Amino acid sequence: MALDGELFAELVGELAGVVGPAHVLSGEEVADYGHDEALSMAAQAPAAVVRPATTAEVAAVLRVASARGVPVTARGTGTGLSGAAVPAPGGLVVSFERMAAVLEIDTANHVAVVQPGVTLAQLDEATAAHGLAYPVYPGEYGASLGGNVATNAGGMRAVRYGVTRHQVLGLEAVLASGEVLRTGGKLVKASSGYDLTQLIVGSEGTLALVTEATLRLYPRLPHQATVLAPFRTVDEVAAAVPTVVASGIAPLILEYIDTVTMAAMTHARDLQLGIPDEIRDGSEAYLLVMLESGNAGRLEEDVERLARHLGELGAVDAYVLPGPAARKLVDAREKAFWTAKAIGAHDIVDVVVPRAAIPEFLRRAREIADKHGSFVAGCGHAGDGNVHLSVFQADPQIRAALLHDLFSAGISLGGLISGEHGIGRAKREHFHELTDPALVELLRRVKQAFDPAGILNPGVTL
Amino acid sequence: MALDGELFAELVGELAGVVGPAHVLSGEEVADYGHDEALSMAAQAPAAVVRPATTAEVAAVLRVASARGVPVTARGTGTGLSGAAVPAPGGLVVSFERMAAVLEIDTANHVAVVQPGVTLAQLDEATAAHGLAYPVYPGEYGASLGGNVATNAGGMRAVRYGVTRHQVLGLEAVLASGEVLRTGGKLVKASSGYDLTQLIVGSEGTLALVTEATLRLYPRLPHQATVLAPFRTVDEVAAAVPTVVASGIAPLILEYIDTVTMAAMTHARDLQLGIPDEIRDGSEAYLLVMLESGNAGRLEEDVERLARHLGELGAVDAYVLPGPAARKLVDAREKAFWTAKAIGAHDIVDVVVPRAAIPEFLRRAREIADKHGSFVAGCGHAGDGNVHLSVFQADPQIRAALLHDLFSAGISLGGLISGEHGIGRAKREHFHELTDPALVELLRRVKQAFDPAGILNPGVTL
Repeated sequence: MALDGELFAELVGELAGVVGPAHVLSGEEVADYGHDEALSMAAQAPAAVVRPATTAEVAAVLRVASARGVPVTARGTGTGLSGAAVPAPGGLVVSFERMAAVLEIDTANHVAVVQPGVTLAQLDEATAAHGLAYPVYPGEYGASLGGNVATNAGGMRAVRYGVTRHQVLGLEAVLASGEVLRTGGKLVKASSGYDLTQLIVGSEGTLALVTEATLRLYPRLPHQATVLAPFRTVDEVAAAVPTVVASGIAPLILEYIDTVTMAAMTHARDLQLGIPDEIRDGSEAYLLVMLESGNAGRLEEDVERLARHLGELGAVDAYVLPGPAARKLVDAREKAFWTAKAIGAHDIVDVVVPRAAIPEFLRRAREIADKHGSFVAGCGHAGDGNVHLSVFQADPQIRAALLHDLFSAGISLGGLISGEHGIGRAKREHFHELTDPALVELLRRVKQAFDPAGILNPGVTL
Repeated sequence: MALDGELFAELVGELAGVVGPAHVLSGEEVADYGHDEALSMAAQAPAAVVRPATTAEVAAVLRVASARGVPVTARGTGTGLSGAAVPAPGGLVVSFERMAAVLEIDTANHVAVVQPGVTLAQLDEATAAHGLAYPVYPGEYGASLGGNVATNAGGMRAVRYGVTRHQVLGLEAVLASGEVLRTGGKLVKASSGYDLTQLIVGSEGTLALVTEATLRLYPRLPHQATVLAPFRTVDEVAAAVPTVVASGIAPLILEYIDTVTMAAMTHARDLQLGIPDEIRDGSEAYLLVMLESGNAGRLEEDVERLARHLGELGAVDAYVLPGPAARKLVDAREKAFWTAKAIGAHDIVDVVVPRAAIPEFLRRAREIADKHGSFVAGCGHAGDGNVHLSVFQADPQIRAALLHDLFSAGISLGGLISGEHGIGRAKREHFHELTDPALVELLRRVKQAFDPAGILNPGVTL
């Protein structure tokens, strides 16, 4: 697939004609554009990187790539966990680092309009100034909104606000042909033709390149409280979750953390949670619950109700964490990926199952790990049934068999391979092995409707 | 397109072989299957009606229809407002009246699994027994869930809970080829391939026939309160809406009702709201706000806060309606379509615009009506920017020009033709005139990916 010298020079020349020579990178300059954070993926340097500044430039770049049949991979800030930003060999990376403006914070309609290179941290700052918030935080504030849209990113607050899909009201996107489309708008509802906005969300750069997103915002609530409840068994934690959801307390965060993960997190971050040793040693897992409210009195009432509730559900105790400890723990949980990486996890998976199936899935996951002489530990978005497991197994073949079994177990419980990380390149083979072939064929035909020549992120998802 | 006698007899014979002769209707028996509630659509009797009882029968029916190239229109209870259930000439109606079972109320995962013929009333009864609720009420409780999925139905509570799209977690659907697919599941999030669930929602029976839907449920909250606030001008009502949304009170219902519509509603239903004549006569529109809560004390506080707020926003007064009057008014608002029909409206439209654009849209709508010597009046889901206008103009040509101008005005304000009724057959021509041709072409290619021979509801949407 590598272009020969002359053709490559022509390609670079044409791209330079579109974005200016300073914004077409090749050779050593592209080294850092060949990977994301997927633990199991080898980097693959692109043939060239192009950095457009406008939608018109993106369209022109895609016309060049289409004419030459060169594969194109979109890139935000490269924080993905499934290798969807790893380019095809000989491919072009379109990096959105120069399209990183918050175009509008519309306070009357509660929406933000952003370019794809905007990071979550940047959007948080822009919305805070207006007392508003964009509620999706997948843990990595350096992630770009374009990447979040491509993977349908989730995170801890999804149990209250939903995932990226639920915030994206409209898109501007460019097809492989260079055609620029607009879908949706500053509208919370629509019934005017197929919802292409929702189809493009989660499509991992394989259908179109998103050049602008209209996102839903919410009032930023001033009061938070965090409760940490140790439980004797993982089963008890998981069983408590549906009851907490049904209670009407509507937690902002509802996470389970197993004792291995908690130990790694507290150790790595020097966290003092004030839990007596004998309780810690007798607990197999924790439930971490955060509440938020516009009203301090109501929040206090809800915390008391929650603590009582957790006691009835078998929690050994329920600690209301002081602000600084709570922030540190939530931050540690958000960064659990880095902790797992630091302690040598070989892969991370994020199977999603019906939330009531979490105990059964975790039981099966332990059995599967044992069977393969491996180890898994983790934490997860318990309210959403989204289980994050760190997988410890150095041998790639054994690991592949282990992942296959984990994914199968999730699917047999009514789940799917990924709740929020995506399929990307890293899980593509498993996805094809475990998905109804008729469904995969339909996905391929949909892909073809958008990208008949298949130049957008080939080898990702499909 | 009408089949000749012999071919028709063959078709009926094959269908009878699938579902049994008692469930293939033709001749006079099909008269009632040729229309929905779209005011402007002429009925079109199908060649035959088939009433499958299982997914396997639906698949076999579609294989028969595919082999013979016969158009197929799915039908729930025929309450749609855009003619999407009006069959093509010579077409087959697949009626889901025998697939009307609530298959499961899963209290641990808060989901219902239903067949497409289940009505909203039926689902409400089934969920109430478990203290749960399905929150979408588009006004007509006799509507089927299959139809709600096909049109992405909305209704008054969407401002709090979202529309049908936000409740559909998974589908079983049959392609024109007879292939049976499953998408999603009892999962509130997923990132495992394109979201075909969301693509099928709102596709008006043109992509696949839905045979099962997995729907999200919520705790049924026990306490409600209803506030009615008259305003001197429509502009003031519309301007109040974003502020109420931003207040964090999170209303269940947030509707504006213009004075003509309110008069028709109170007259038709003999509603006594206790509003003094001089206030009624000096008011151009009303804001109707319903709150709900799990906690009676908090509800009372919120009602007081809301009433204060409405006063600051220019409301002439704010009446907390007693339970029976509130129920009657909300019911009248839900049935506003029937009131409009009864007073002779020639059509109903439901343009959606960014909610802050409602005053401007209503100003333009009045100008457009004047220009065409016509009259429009209405009410709408103010919190969602979804404006329902009754159009009074008997001449079909003038009415078409008027609708064109209304839709154009909505689109030029960043809106779309329909917020919840769908495009169907009734608005197809307008949709094509007013939508980017490149987008329409892409929709056609997506349609082709699902239904290459184009037998599913031809003439609807595309």
